[in-house]
Amino acid sequence: MTYKDIVNQIKLKKSFLCVGLDSDIAKIPEFFKKYDNPVFEFNKQIIDATQKYAIAYKPNLAFYEALGIKGWEALEKTTQYIKNNFPEIFLIADAKRGDIGNTSQLYAKAFFETLPFDAITVAPYMGSDSVSPFLSYKNKWVIILALTSNQGASDFQFIEDKSSGLKIYQTILKTAFNWGHKENIMFVIGATKADMLKEVRQIVPDHFLLVPGIGAQGGKLEEIVNFGINSKCGLIVNASRSIIFASKNKDFAEQAATEAHKLQNEMNNLLKINKII
Amino acid sequence: MTYKDIVNQIKLKKSFLCVGLDSDIAKIPEFFKKYDNPVFEFNKQIIDATQKYAIAYKPNLAFYEALGIKGWEALEKTTQYIKNNFPEIFLIADAKRGDIGNTSQLYAKAFFETLPFDAITVAPYMGSDSVSPFLSYKNKWVIILALTSNQGASDFQFIEDKSSGLKIYQTILKTAFNWGHKENIMFVIGATKADMLKEVRQIVPDHFLLVPGIGAQGGKLEEIVNFGINSKCGLIVNASRSIIFASKNKDFAEQAATEAHKLQNEMNNLLKINKII
Repeated sequence: MTYKDIVNQIKLKKSFLCVGLDSDIAKIPEFFKKYDNPVFEFNKQIIDATQKYAIAYKPNLAFYEALGIKGWEALEKTTQYIKNNFPEIFLIADAKRGDIGNTSQLYAKAFFETLPFDAITVAPYMGSDSVSPFLSYKNKWVIILALTSNQGASDFQFIEDKSSGLKIYQTILKTAFNWGHKENIMFVIGATKADMLKEVRQIVPDHFLLVPGIGAQGGKLEEIVNFGINSKCGLIVNASRSIIFASKNKDFAEQAATEAHKLQNEMNNLLKINKII
Repeated sequence: MTYKDIVNQIKLKKSFLCVGLDSDIAKIPEFFKKYDNPVFEFNKQIIDATQKYAIAYKPNLAFYEALGIKGWEALEKTTQYIKNNFPEIFLIADAKRGDIGNTSQLYAKAFFETLPFDAITVAPYMGSDSVSPFLSYKNKWVIILALTSNQGASDFQFIEDKSSGLKIYQTILKTAFNWGHKENIMFVIGATKADMLKEVRQIVPDHFLLVPGIGAQGGKLEEIVNFGINSKCGLIVNASRSIIFASKNKDFAEQAATEAHKLQNEMNNLLKINKII
């Protein structure tokens, strides 16, 4: 999927919402248990109900791996379902992979060939050769962890470099800026640190930012947009639990749609205010 | 598996060898293609041939994920085969996972419950809560990336902290030192940087170090031992390709055993010289 395709979707759907498919089998409604693959059936209904309001879906690999082969099957079926029925959707593997070159090559194959993902989240600690194999795929994307929204983020991400004065997350933005370009690299910027988006935008003004952490993790959409939007929008904002687990009852899909619609409505207004649409 | 169990195995087998199961389907002998699960059949024969000389096996997840469901099946079968037949073996998932707390919890479930691993490699970038869920399992281990053996390692791992003067990899050692103890945390220290093991040992004198990168990646065993050994050995040294792909012919298992035996022989001598056995 190209940069232009993503921008077009944002304008068409008046949304920059990503729905996180953190489909924890322990949290999906009870009556799915009767299906052969409960997680896939749950995802299918969530996707059908919310796809009008979302431009991207982001399965979180941990929730699938925890189920072993059955989980991998749910992941395969879910991604194929999206690609077959909604080919315009930007499909992100929230996998946070990263290893030496010859290993990353195989991870790239796993997510870009064996599975039909458009993008994968990657941990930058091992440096350039842990990322470059993903970048050799045309129209595929790497989304590099820069600033995360969890508590432990403060352990290492804010350390200041003695020689440059930059914080580690800023060094990562600056360094990775040269690994590719705005058409194959995005960055993860945790939403609980919305004011830092200003600093981020000084280093990567044109790149898309994937912003997790609104809803259950507490980030506010308006703040994110104020500090992070650019002339092409440049934001993909993710909500997971607040949408997919909006209800545990028969009306779970309807309630998920309502929550997604609420966010899309807010996004529509913010896109208008910022003259993107 | 406990610290004591690992030390006992080292003394019994006179070895601290880990065999990396980077079982790339493109590189295993042709005649395995006839099997329903070629990678598992290959692994089984490699394990049977080398287990006398090794205390640990380390499947590299990328090589399994690249095959989709079939790969996950190979991984499940391989790990079960090891646990059923050689329960004394220390089983490491080279997965380099790491995410916010509730996600890491699910990764821990995937590798410590759904699969029977004793340990998992973890990327530290997201900090303490990305690691702590793994540490809540009794007799299971987290192996934290500190210093890696790839070229990209120099992108971020050697940045010096303005306030402490420590390099990032040293800060990770120092910080993670407080997350657990020598009986549930190990560190990955790339073997191409053997002289840095001296610095590492100043911070974590008692912890086990997992040292990848000998053989195909070029590290030298004697150097590693000179700089890295402690009174309980404290080293697990990994070789992958140089063992499992020692031959592409019918004699692949025999050749793998020969390569593993060579290393075990060297290790035996070094353990004696250092009065561990």
